[in-house]
Amino acid sequence: MKIAILGFGVVGSGVAEVLKTNKSQITKKAGQEIEIKYIMDLRDFAGEPFEHLMTKDFGAIENDPEVEVVVESIGGDTIAYEYTKRALLSGKNVCTPNKALIAKHGAELFSIAKERGVHILFEASVGGGIPLIRPYNDALLTDEVEEVSGILNGTSNYILTQMMNGTSYENALKDAQELGYAEQDPTADVGSFDACRKLAIMLSLAVNKQVNYEEIKTEGIQEINSEDFAFAKALGFTLKQLVNGSIRKNGVEALAAPFLIPLSHPLASVNDVFNGVWVRGKTTGNIMLYGSGAGKLPTASAVVTNIVDIAAANCLPCTWTSDKANILPTSTYAKRKAIRASFENANAISAVKSAIGAETVSLPDYPNTIAWLTPLETEAQTAQTLEVIKRFPGFKSIERVMRVYNAE
Amino acid sequence: MKIAILGFGVVGSGVAEVLKTNKSQITKKAGQEIEIKYIMDLRDFAGEPFEHLMTKDFGAIENDPEVEVVVESIGGDTIAYEYTKRALLSGKNVCTPNKALIAKHGAELFSIAKERGVHILFEASVGGGIPLIRPYNDALLTDEVEEVSGILNGTSNYILTQMMNGTSYENALKDAQELGYAEQDPTADVGSFDACRKLAIMLSLAVNKQVNYEEIKTEGIQEINSEDFAFAKALGFTLKQLVNGSIRKNGVEALAAPFLIPLSHPLASVNDVFNGVWVRGKTTGNIMLYGSGAGKLPTASAVVTNIVDIAAANCLPCTWTSDKANILPTSTYAKRKAIRASFENANAISAVKSAIGAETVSLPDYPNTIAWLTPLETEAQTAQTLEVIKRFPGFKSIERVMRVYNAE
Repeated sequence: MKIAILGFGVVGSGVAEVLKTNKSQITKKAGQEIEIKYIMDLRDFAGEPFEHLMTKDFGAIENDPEVEVVVESIGGDTIAYEYTKRALLSGKNVCTPNKALIAKHGAELFSIAKERGVHILFEASVGGGIPLIRPYNDALLTDEVEEVSGILNGTSNYILTQMMNGTSYENALKDAQELGYAEQDPTADVGSFDACRKLAIMLSLAVNKQVNYEEIKTEGIQEINSEDFAFAKALGFTLKQLVNGSIRKNGVEALAAPFLIPLSHPLASVNDVFNGVWVRGKTTGNIMLYGSGAGKLPTASAVVTNIVDIAAANCLPCTWTSDKANILPTSTYAKRKAIRASFENANAISAVKSAIGAETVSLPDYPNTIAWLTPLETEAQTAQTLEVIKRFPGFKSIERVMRVYNAE
Repeated sequence: MKIAILGFGVVGSGVAEVLKTNKSQITKKAGQEIEIKYIMDLRDFAGEPFEHLMTKDFGAIENDPEVEVVVESIGGDTIAYEYTKRALLSGKNVCTPNKALIAKHGAELFSIAKERGVHILFEASVGGGIPLIRPYNDALLTDEVEEVSGILNGTSNYILTQMMNGTSYENALKDAQELGYAEQDPTADVGSFDACRKLAIMLSLAVNKQVNYEEIKTEGIQEINSEDFAFAKALGFTLKQLVNGSIRKNGVEALAAPFLIPLSHPLASVNDVFNGVWVRGKTTGNIMLYGSGAGKLPTASAVVTNIVDIAAANCLPCTWTSDKANILPTSTYAKRKAIRASFENANAISAVKSAIGAETVSLPDYPNTIAWLTPLETEAQTAQTLEVIKRFPGFKSIERVMRVYNAE
């Protein structure tokens, strides 16, 4: 089987490497040899081993009936979108790690693929190297998924793990940039936008409708500090950038934001650049899939798994329709909150404690400050609680309000 | 597609339930309706909704060309083995949760299945409800698996979690029996034999050869006590019944035994009846698959996933050959150990501490006792260390020597 690779960056070159390193295994399981016929890239690779395969002409690939699979590893959703569409229209399968492309244009691309009798597969687009989309899709097959949540951005998780171990946000970000885990402009990662696209893909699969990621409430991790971690720990939690999706009868709940996670929860053990996805199915119960969310070889391996699926004619439908999913307004979500507030003095705190009702924690390093957990409540109910707190004599400031992840 | 269910116990009846509850989803993804034609069981189910499907005659199933899939949910490896073989020989696919059957007879059954052009699938046999065998097999497809370890017996894990929280072994076992997590004779579970069979299946798949579980060193959890947990915690670890397999150039290392697990390791968060499998692949890196290891609906869901795979003609080979795998002798394994020893008095301890070299921990509740971690060493090296310790003046007893799990 002949394939073409569009974009010879980290993932594209990784795919070539994995196909070469594991050639005999792959050939055996695919039932045929998989050969790269074209590599398309803007750059020249003079003197490189793959040089003879390089082309700058997509038309040559598009019009070559020998090419059965196109790997789209250019990224973004403009050129990548155009080439992917053209590849599918010319009867070629597409394998891609491109979450922006799938999150935004998935429904349309699946429709074209179906019409042409080909597949567009995207295992590598969510949780890079973790076997995720396939088992998740299989679970959706025989079960009703009620919740999908997780830690899906390695950059942010690395930063927050460093912070949990005592590093400041600024230094942790700098470390991440030096190690290549974060971009010069890290906003897509730390702003939770990357994680949000991945949640949109998972929810779209779950409800078989297009979930538009721009409609998902997204909050970044840039404001988090050591005081947040200290109080979270005192309450028995850690802090993570979490995507949190619930499938209800009339729509989906969706958030991408910082959350407190109970220290005993398996998601709390997902650290550094690792990702973890927690899925609750009605008959399967709770499962978690954990592994490298990114990285050249894990991500490339996921793309190669999809190529082999196609070669072995082993693809179950993994798509959604263009019907628009109903994203329920966040004002209706019932979540526990962790509230941290500061006061003028100990007396002011004593007075407000009885109003709070819940057990509060305080720490020597942060005088005149208390934190506590609210019951499950809506945003409006939390706002009411804050109003009551603010009216107490000696009230200084609401330091932080953060959602708490409680597995149901 | 017509199927037969052999054995209408927990899993068998669970399969019928899942097929009914999720009928429309299943029909859609399988591309055809899946209908139970026969249910075979020794018992009568007079008055039950499935009564009209009951039979006691395997020959009727065997000779019915309409039946394409047989669910073997009788258990054990005598009758189940005979019926499975006959089903495959008569050109029927088999789906089973039976680990004893697959661990012992897998190679032979795969061979018969291949000859007849059918499949025998066993997703539910390891880690019941966790999507495990399929993603694991997919990973083996494109990657080289170097290690497979995990917590694969929910009964033992439940007991050990209770003990971690302060319950005695005896009371935890009693609780487990009352909750139906443990048998009257719990030896298969707490002796680590059940977990061992599952490791044999995982390793057989990894090396494509028959790993005989009777050759795997198996140690139970029956001797573990609260002192073990207290010292493990002081050292930064918890205690789990772990299966630990490593694939080397010349064979496999395999153990099913109690291990200390670092508290920060994701396996340490796998508690109660949950299972977790940790796989390290050369290109994929580390992944963990977590979920319910047992339970009616999760296990039945896994069987149904296999039935749908067959109905949708979506099965990649998931087998191994009858070549015998080489299980390396445990004497060659390099593991860290946690040693706990008691002495006559504090002076005796001071003297031995300098010989030990490593940092030792002691606890007020257990006077004159210290624990420490050795470096990576073989059993012979550890035996030598113990000999040196025993010769010290004031030495009382070696309380415990336990292996330490250190992800490489």
